Amino acid sequence: MLKVAIAGGSGYTGGELLRLLLQHPHVKVTLVTAERSAGKAVTELFPGLRKIADHLTFEPMDFKKAVNRADLFFLCLPHKTSQEIVFNLHKAGKKVIDLSADYRLKEPSVYEEWYNTPHFYPALLKKSVYGLPELYRKEIKKAKIVANPGCYPVSAILGLAPLLSQKAEVIDTDSIIIDSKSGVSGAGRNPSQPFMFCEANESVRAYAITTHRHTPEIEQELSSAAKKKIQITFTPHLMPMDRGILSTIYVKLKKDSRFKIQDSRLHKIYQKFYAKEPFVRVLKEGEYPNTKAVKGTNFCDIAVFPNTRKNSLIIVTAIDNLLKGAAGAAVHNMNIMYGFDETEGLKPFAPFP
Amino acid sequence: MLKVAIAGGSGYTGGELLRLLLQHPHVKVTLVTAERSAGKAVTELFPGLRKIADHLTFEPMDFKKAVNRADLFFLCLPHKTSQEIVFNLHKAGKKVIDLSADYRLKEPSVYEEWYNTPHFYPALLKKSVYGLPELYRKEIKKAKIVANPGCYPVSAILGLAPLLSQKAEVIDTDSIIIDSKSGVSGAGRNPSQPFMFCEANESVRAYAITTHRHTPEIEQELSSAAKKKIQITFTPHLMPMDRGILSTIYVKLKKDSRFKIQDSRLHKIYQKFYAKEPFVRVLKEGEYPNTKAVKGTNFCDIAVFPNTRKNSLIIVTAIDNLLKGAAGAAVHNMNIMYGFDETEGLKPFAPFP
Amino acid sequence: MLKVAIAGGSGYTGGELLRLLLQHPHVKVTLVTAERSAGKAVTELFPGLRKIADHLTFEPMDFKKAVNRADLFFLCLPHKTSQEIVFNLHKAGKKVIDLSADYRLKEPSVYEEWYNTPHFYPALLKKSVYGLPELYRKEIKKAKIVANPGCYPVSAILGLAPLLSQKAEVIDTDSIIIDSKSGVSGAGRNPSQPFMFCEANESVRAYAITTHRHTPEIEQELSSAAKKKIQITFTPHLMPMDRGILSTIYVKLKKDSRFKIQDSRLHKIYQKFYAKEPFVRVLKEGEYPNTKAVKGTNFCDIAVFPNTRKNSLIIVTAIDNLLKGAAGAAVHNMNIMYGFDETEGLKPFAPFP
Amino acid sequence: MLKVAIAGGSGYTGGELLRLLLQHPHVKVTLVTAERSAGKAVTELFPGLRKIADHLTFEPMDFKKAVNRADLFFLCLPHKTSQEIVFNLHKAGKKVIDLSADYRLKEPSVYEEWYNTPHFYPALLKKSVYGLPELYRKEIKKAKIVANPGCYPVSAILGLAPLLSQKAEVIDTDSIIIDSKSGVSGAGRNPSQPFMFCEANESVRAYAITTHRHTPEIEQELSSAAKKKIQITFTPHLMPMDRGILSTIYVKLKKDSRFKIQDSRLHKIYQKFYAKEPFVRVLKEGEYPNTKAVKGTNFCDIAVFPNTRKNSLIIVTAIDNLLKGAAGAAVHNMNIMYGFDETEGLKPFAPFP
Repeated sequence: MLKVAIAGGSGYTGGELLRLLLQHPHVKVTLVTAERSAGKAVTELFPGLRKIADHLTFEPMDFKKAVNRADLFFLCLPHKTSQEIVFNLHKAGKKVIDLSADYRLKEPSVYEEWYNTPHFYPALLKKSVYGLPELYRKEIKKAKIVANPGCYPVSAILGLAPLLSQKAEVIDTDSIIIDSKSGVSGAGRNPSQPFMFCEANESVRAYAITTHRHTPEIEQELSSAAKKKIQITFTPHLMPMDRGILSTIYVKLKKDSRFKIQDSRLHKIYQKFYAKEPFVRVLKEGEYPNTKAVKGTNFCDIAVFPNTRKNSLIIVTAIDNLLKGAAGAAVHNMNIMYGFDETEGLKPFAPFP
Repeated sequence: MLKVAIAGGSGYTGGELLRLLLQHPHVKVTLVTAERSAGKAVTELFPGLRKIADHLTFEPMDFKKAVNRADLFFLCLPHKTSQEIVFNLHKAGKKVIDLSADYRLKEPSVYEEWYNTPHFYPALLKKSVYGLPELYRKEIKKAKIVANPGCYPVSAILGLAPLLSQKAEVIDTDSIIIDSKSGVSGAGRNPSQPFMFCEANESVRAYAITTHRHTPEIEQELSSAAKKKIQITFTPHLMPMDRGILSTIYVKLKKDSRFKIQDSRLHKIYQKFYAKEPFVRVLKEGEYPNTKAVKGTNFCDIAVFPNTRKNSLIIVTAIDNLLKGAAGAAVHNMNIMYGFDETEGLKPFAPFP
Repeated sequence: MLKVAIAGGSGYTGGELLRLLLQHPHVKVTLVTAERSAGKAVTELFPGLRKIADHLTFEPMDFKKAVNRADLFFLCLPHKTSQEIVFNLHKAGKKVIDLSADYRLKEPSVYEEWYNTPHFYPALLKKSVYGLPELYRKEIKKAKIVANPGCYPVSAILGLAPLLSQKAEVIDTDSIIIDSKSGVSGAGRNPSQPFMFCEANESVRAYAITTHRHTPEIEQELSSAAKKKIQITFTPHLMPMDRGILSTIYVKLKKDSRFKIQDSRLHKIYQKFYAKEPFVRVLKEGEYPNTKAVKGTNFCDIAVFPNTRKNSLIIVTAIDNLLKGAAGAAVHNMNIMYGFDETEGLKPFAPFP
Repeated sequence: MLKVAIAGGSGYTGGELLRLLLQHPHVKVTLVTAERSAGKAVTELFPGLRKIADHLTFEPMDFKKAVNRADLFFLCLPHKTSQEIVFNLHKAGKKVIDLSADYRLKEPSVYEEWYNTPHFYPALLKKSVYGLPELYRKEIKKAKIVANPGCYPVSAILGLAPLLSQKAEVIDTDSIIIDSKSGVSGAGRNPSQPFMFCEANESVRAYAITTHRHTPEIEQELSSAAKKKIQITFTPHLMPMDRGILSTIYVKLKKDSRFKIQDSRLHKIYQKFYAKEPFVRVLKEGEYPNTKAVKGTNFCDIAVFPNTRKNSLIIVTAIDNLLKGAAGAAVHNMNIMYGFDETEGLKPFAPFP
């Protein structure tokens, strides 16, 4: 049994990690930390986990005591806080899956620009692996530090990677627009007026236009896939629902592309790219992704629509932001790192409705 | 033009008062206070009021400066805070509509028992009028202090007053059970985890079983209507919606009642009692109240169902907790106090859906 | 591998059965019928089941062909339709779990009174077992026909059975009032205006007051537990959420009861009664059930509150109407009938939020 | 008093028209038709209108009897059905505000292409006026046939008209992408599975990608404003809420534009363009439109965001699809046609939350 710890386990991502890991056959949760909730029973904050988490109590994070309690640490800590803890855990020989943004951006200067703080461990940045299995499975297998991707980036990158990874350029990489719609759980569990029920319910709005911190993360991975620098337009929106991200992605076909817009090979590029992936479902032509069909699962559903009137493509992806966009991806990464079956602990399909 | 002030105007009730009063033809809002939001534009907290509240800024409550700014004060302050301000305003010759609970309970000892604080102005308690127009219209007309009713009590009292006011007892007053379902806005606008979108959405739960502070208020008014001491069972529930209270009320018919349970006169008691009321709609037999049909209005919809198998009645009422249960009732009270048309400022019917 | 068929698999209960059974290690789904959707891929109606149900197509119900395709039949057919199919399957030696109401009421006359149609197989009624494992585990083990309980009855019966099963009477059995709040999925998947999004959203209402067909079912089982005839008051309500039933149950303590209302033994009665039950969670004193904590699970959460002012008890239960109230209970029954681990296929805990 | 009739009054748009017109001081509703609901009381379908619509009953549409009952007809009939009725009403000398799409598209061939039916009254098409007051106030004043705009087009056209109406081209008209998010009421009131509560709740999805019928309508009006042919990309999405459309519009600045992207004059173009409009609110720089702030009102809120990294603009608009996008616009058009105050009947601000 692998001993795992969750640091920062009182939020929605921590709760989902707890739920998944407590039901995982090869894992034992030995420590859950939460500063403000230290001393409280886990079931007090997550009453849905009664009968499975009755033995667990939130503890404060005391590094010296914590470090020997587990072999793998999941960090659900705020950005900036993670930096040093990852460093210390790594130094102590522990493996880490960091769900913050601290080890996602490879360029310290880009991190500093978007997060307004320097990165103090640039050397470690190089060792960390971006934890998107569909792109970095091999590297994850050997990784000691996995930087778990952001929720919006997962939905954007999986929607574009197949096209950008083609040898001959397919799309106009300057034309990418990602219009994303997220459920409210993406905003976290801390009390905050904009995410109160009566503020978010019956309400749709954009936010952080041109300034959202997931922008450089998306650009880094798209650039890497395309082997050229890509700048995108990314607009997040808040939807009145608990979970889910739907990303509607607009791209122009490259003018001299070998494809015509209605070429069915465009669809096949996706089918081929994800043929062996356990958690990506490329829909049939004409089918629409729906956040409800992936809710509670680790799936990413993808569909590609040709826009013949404008010689462009509209790609739509749907994920559960807390699973494929956070805790599910983290467990998937763990499974890969430790050689477990990739779907272990992630098999349940979504209740409907 | 009547000059009115709103103290504590940054919450949902304050916002509704602002909306109603800014559109009221006989009223001018001269002051809106809010401690933490002092200095902010009203439209920053209520963007829906752009174009009508652009001239208003939240001010801190400075009694000396405030007192001469208006003739009528609406107080949306926390319980306990209101006590003294009402006293001082009254002393200064101002009229007050107090939306807190501080002047609702006539017995200081009952107030102290349920609110854990003494009442320092028992003399003033006697002068204040319980602001439920359907029961106290005459008194409100002459009142200088109106204690605006709580939201649950409105839904409960209006559902039972017709039966309890009959000369010969109709129902077993010991049998009253009020099972109420409220939208989330009843919990106010202050950030608090249980009322975050992701906590309250897709969730139904009871709370404050046997301990809710509206219990003594309901009992006071039912007892007054029945001219005997009544104790009730009252259970509030939280529903995943913005607004509305549905109260399902269970009462046994008195054993020696002059009515049989299917007597259509029971329905007529309600029709007669509310025949001239502008804001009560007694539904036809067989029709069901629905919070959606009163949302955004000052109406209380009421239906009475005979339960022949158990010789009991099931009475269902629906109100909008922020209007008939708070701000709408307050404006109604103002209209009565100042001799305006009772429906002035309260005419709009509800958008559907 | 047990071969199972689902008849009437295109609704919400059918979908949940599919999801559970397709992930069940000891079961193979060999047939799914649906009249109007015959010929359609299962994933067309349940896109969330892509990757696990890709091989399944809805078929029309052709008894002769169907009968040999499976050993156990789950029937999600309309009331009245089930009667004859159960009879024929039973005659052919098949086992049946019937999710309709056709074999729940033991008295044909009661069935006829509430369902407006005679029961043509009264002999078979006697052989069928009411499929509530907490009360009939032994009988289910040997049953050939299991009548799966209605959703509201599960929430009501589990809340009252411990008290009613005591040797000395604890409660006044004439005083039972059950006020239930259900999510919209209880109304099924057929298009119908009252359950359209814009009608049910932001809306709370009671319905079927004194006439709901689950009334006699609840009364039958409470009477059986108490060994005396019991008539109840039952009021269902519609809540704006997908799933879940919260039942708030009011009962008076018997006047000469051996318990005083604050006796902690009342709580212990529940703990003891359900001590070994895998799917009932008796909450600690002071904790409140919440439908969100049982959503997506087969749990029933129960809490008991003493109402000292009225010498009564308020019992609150929460279930997921499609699982513990339908498909989950059906799989639980199957597990018992075939000697599988009772929690097999029902282990996953609920995603939150 | 102007006598008005509503044909097709049982849907959401009809209901909103009823609500607005019954409260309008210069109007008397003399006829409401509805085929399937003929004979039913208006309040049966719209219980929120009890006390104001008690005298109205739905009637079947009998042209001969209907034509003399009113001077102005609001048609909320299905596309294609409106064509002939408009013709006949016009011939009879009546004025018409048609809320269908039948008289919006000026080119019969475009109508036929997108609606799969010929237009039989092309001469009348020329006489009809596109009922968007911000662009066609003068023409509406004299119009006998007003084609009330579609909901999505209102949100798109108002967001782009200021830029496209500039003398020198500001934006690359080939680059326009409109990503719209709509509440469920846009789908109408007829029972249909995709819009059942449990299907649409907790769900976000795109639909009708590249094929939505509002596309040619948007293109017609943008082309007209820009005085050149414009083709756009338009993607509608369904959001889990009752009302509201948020449109996020992406446009590139023209390469040789006289503006740099951060030029504050871009914002001023909007302020100036809508300076005298009673129902358009151009937000301050940095403020975000939110559907909740316009819910229940006839406002369109607009904000413009410069995207310096991509030399493009992101324009966000918010409307209530049933008011500014349907019934509110229709009443606004009536007010203009008959010389009433433009805001008459449309003054109420939105309840919040």
